Amino acid sequence: MRTIYFGTFVHSLTLSDLQVLPSAAVGVDEDGTIEFLDQNADSPEVVAEKHSWPVGSYSIVSTDPASASFFFPGFFDTHIHASQYPNVGLFGKTTLLDWLNTYTFPLESSFADLKVADSVYSRVIARTLGNGTTTAAYYATVHTAGTNRLADLALSVGQRAFIGRCCMDANSPDYYCDKSLEEAQKATLDVIEHIKKIDPNYDIVCPILTPRFAASCTKELLSWLGKLSTDTNLPVQTHISENLLEVDLVKSMHPFGNSYADVYDKCGLLGERTILAHAVHLTEDERALIARRGSGVSHCPASNSALTSGETRVKWLLDAGVKVGLGTDVSGGFTPSILHTARQALLVSRHLSMKGDESHKLSIEEVLYLATVGGANVCGLDNKLGNFLPGKKWDAQLITLDCKDSPVDIFPWEREKPEDLIAKWLFNGDDRNVTKVWVNGKLVAGTAFTL
Amino acid sequence: MRTIYFGTFVHSLTLSDLQVLPSAAVGVDEDGTIEFLDQNADSPEVVAEKHSWPVGSYSIVSTDPASASFFFPGFFDTHIHASQYPNVGLFGKTTLLDWLNTYTFPLESSFADLKVADSVYSRVIARTLGNGTTTAAYYATVHTAGTNRLADLALSVGQRAFIGRCCMDANSPDYYCDKSLEEAQKATLDVIEHIKKIDPNYDIVCPILTPRFAASCTKELLSWLGKLSTDTNLPVQTHISENLLEVDLVKSMHPFGNSYADVYDKCGLLGERTILAHAVHLTEDERALIARRGSGVSHCPASNSALTSGETRVKWLLDAGVKVGLGTDVSGGFTPSILHTARQALLVSRHLSMKGDESHKLSIEEVLYLATVGGANVCGLDNKLGNFLPGKKWDAQLITLDCKDSPVDIFPWEREKPEDLIAKWLFNGDDRNVTKVWVNGKLVAGTAFTL
Repeated sequence: MRTIYFGTFVHSLTLSDLQVLPSAAVGVDEDGTIEFLDQNADSPEVVAEKHSWPVGSYSIVSTDPASASFFFPGFFDTHIHASQYPNVGLFGKTTLLDWLNTYTFPLESSFADLKVADSVYSRVIARTLGNGTTTAAYYATVHTAGTNRLADLALSVGQRAFIGRCCMDANSPDYYCDKSLEEAQKATLDVIEHIKKIDPNYDIVCPILTPRFAASCTKELLSWLGKLSTDTNLPVQTHISENLLEVDLVKSMHPFGNSYADVYDKCGLLGERTILAHAVHLTEDERALIARRGSGVSHCPASNSALTSGETRVKWLLDAGVKVGLGTDVSGGFTPSILHTARQALLVSRHLSMKGDESHKLSIEEVLYLATVGGANVCGLDNKLGNFLPGKKWDAQLITLDCKDSPVDIFPWEREKPEDLIAKWLFNGDDRNVTKVWVNGKLVAGTAFTL
Repeated sequence: MRTIYFGTFVHSLTLSDLQVLPSAAVGVDEDGTIEFLDQNADSPEVVAEKHSWPVGSYSIVSTDPASASFFFPGFFDTHIHASQYPNVGLFGKTTLLDWLNTYTFPLESSFADLKVADSVYSRVIARTLGNGTTTAAYYATVHTAGTNRLADLALSVGQRAFIGRCCMDANSPDYYCDKSLEEAQKATLDVIEHIKKIDPNYDIVCPILTPRFAASCTKELLSWLGKLSTDTNLPVQTHISENLLEVDLVKSMHPFGNSYADVYDKCGLLGERTILAHAVHLTEDERALIARRGSGVSHCPASNSALTSGETRVKWLLDAGVKVGLGTDVSGGFTPSILHTARQALLVSRHLSMKGDESHKLSIEEVLYLATVGGANVCGLDNKLGNFLPGKKWDAQLITLDCKDSPVDIFPWEREKPEDLIAKWLFNGDDRNVTKVWVNGKLVAGTAFTL
């Protein structure tokens, strides 16, 4: 059935333009597509009549006018290792390379057991969806069956997800790797075939080619994945320039590349649907190359702080035309919440600006753009998702700041100041404020969600 | 009645020694004082018999052995502007001095209205106590009646609190300041008198002398407060070296001091019960002076990041013997939670270490020490509070990680790894995990608290 959503809407139009629309109406058709967005609407009924939607042909979802609540686009998590979710917060004083060996590979290797995959993947989907993440670009593990299970679960729950089977045929521990190029190829194709079977048009779940990172793949595997991406138009995700030791490692492993980015480029992996996580230590030339190719960056501030990786220059990337979205990078990042990650993006940008250049500072509007429209750009879904413009899909969350047990206190004089309410949400809000979550027009989660 | 607490206890003994005691028992007498802490206890009954506590003379509070829960000392918030609580998250792109004029002074001035004071102060006490803050060093406003109300509310709810009436007779807006030295003196004495009346031994609420900061006080006012502190042995709280523009301002206003710290020292304000908030940009000499005087620092990482103030060198302070605790610095800081602040302290220490010196990194053990024992040190209450050693008061929280709607997911294989559970709590826990909160042996808050 069609639905008219009525009340206050908040969404990003551009990096700096966070639009607040009180008394607006959004009409969503049977397929979850937004048919209209009407500002200054009198009532759902008046709007319906204007658009010739007959009485009885639609349902209505209104925000309570007495409450501090609003519709907001669903969040994009453009970089999350679903399999690492049990390890959130566990990193000690490690940095990237020792962290992988100490915490990460041992956990990921346990996903040979489908029971582990089931229990972890169902939790991470519920947790991220409950935090308003309607689209996630997931890394699974090397295991085909476990990766397929992640796809099954995301589809059945209704979370939009890119499903990445990790390719790693070099420089990885014996107990956790692709034993050969052929094994990586076969497993990758098996996962694609499985997802094609369960969601033929990739409406909700879509395979994503996933060379773990340049240092864990042979040139042959990288090139094969690059060609596969060109042939199939499937998206790609990988890591780039997260940590200085890693940058050195890639340089020594792949001398054919002039830079980390050039290694990927020479292997055909820098396309318009490529997500590059981190991009902390890029050179000017790499930035220009990535911009030219139209690839996107997943900025993972919580992870970059936790693992002492560095401070990504987000404005510097955006200024060159590089697409940027946010990633939790669970479990290098400690939080499964994109709201929390957006908060960290704002804070990290201040640490960057403490070095002397104020222009690095990100505003609330900007980090919320990164969390939504920026994420859609990076995922190549900007024509379909990211805000409430007609023609896009209804992937949305209903945020209620004065819900029961809310972590946010609203005082009477603040109720009429939407920009203050949004700031308070960004800094103290959490999943308790996520009352309802829709993907593709379908209600799938939220504190007010029951089956 | 006496109480035996039984189950798992976690507390800090030293900066690096976070002790985890499964199957321990803590006996608390009628006055809220810890009489014993027994490790490897068989049962509350066996322990009671050992200590000659007759059956029927005590009650028992046990953690559920099937749940991931533990007793933890109550948190210290050594720097929080109670009156600024409505503004948490509101700071935009300001830094200290414009933030004061844009956001802070207008809000604080509204506390001339006791209705505002009542509504804000009751919320901030409930919110901080619900987050496990059993002791808070509060700044109120310049208003005597409002400040007294904060003391009344803290006492009636049962939160241990230092109550600071802001002194500011210079360099402050006309609409919000002390009109004269005499006005500041009279108001200060009035608040002391009030608190003496409601809590004669300062068991729960205690006045704290509060020159807002050196740049908002005349030398006469600073010196009078310094002398009053010596005469009465009352504690002192103020700000120091938060922001470079502020440091310059203090230098030009008070040329009699060789440094910011020296201004306070020459006015007699650096005592063993002095709390100095921020201390971001101290010189070596100032650090040595503060250490010599035995004053403490309230480290406010969330605030320092938000207002782009800088990165406090916590280890550098501790290395010189300076006492350090944590402060939320609401609302320069955006969170009323000390757990969240401890997380930020760990992250900020990583940003500091990105400048090239790994030794700045704070561990989980260290930030939890700062949140408890460190806070007690800074407040001059280390003989009385901070951990569960016999002779101290039972100010504690019961943390339950697998409570209903917990923000923390625990997987089966993690249940027996206390250090992992503590890490997961630090990074994703919140007030939902604070099941019970006691101050001075009395249950006062928590999700399982009902009157």
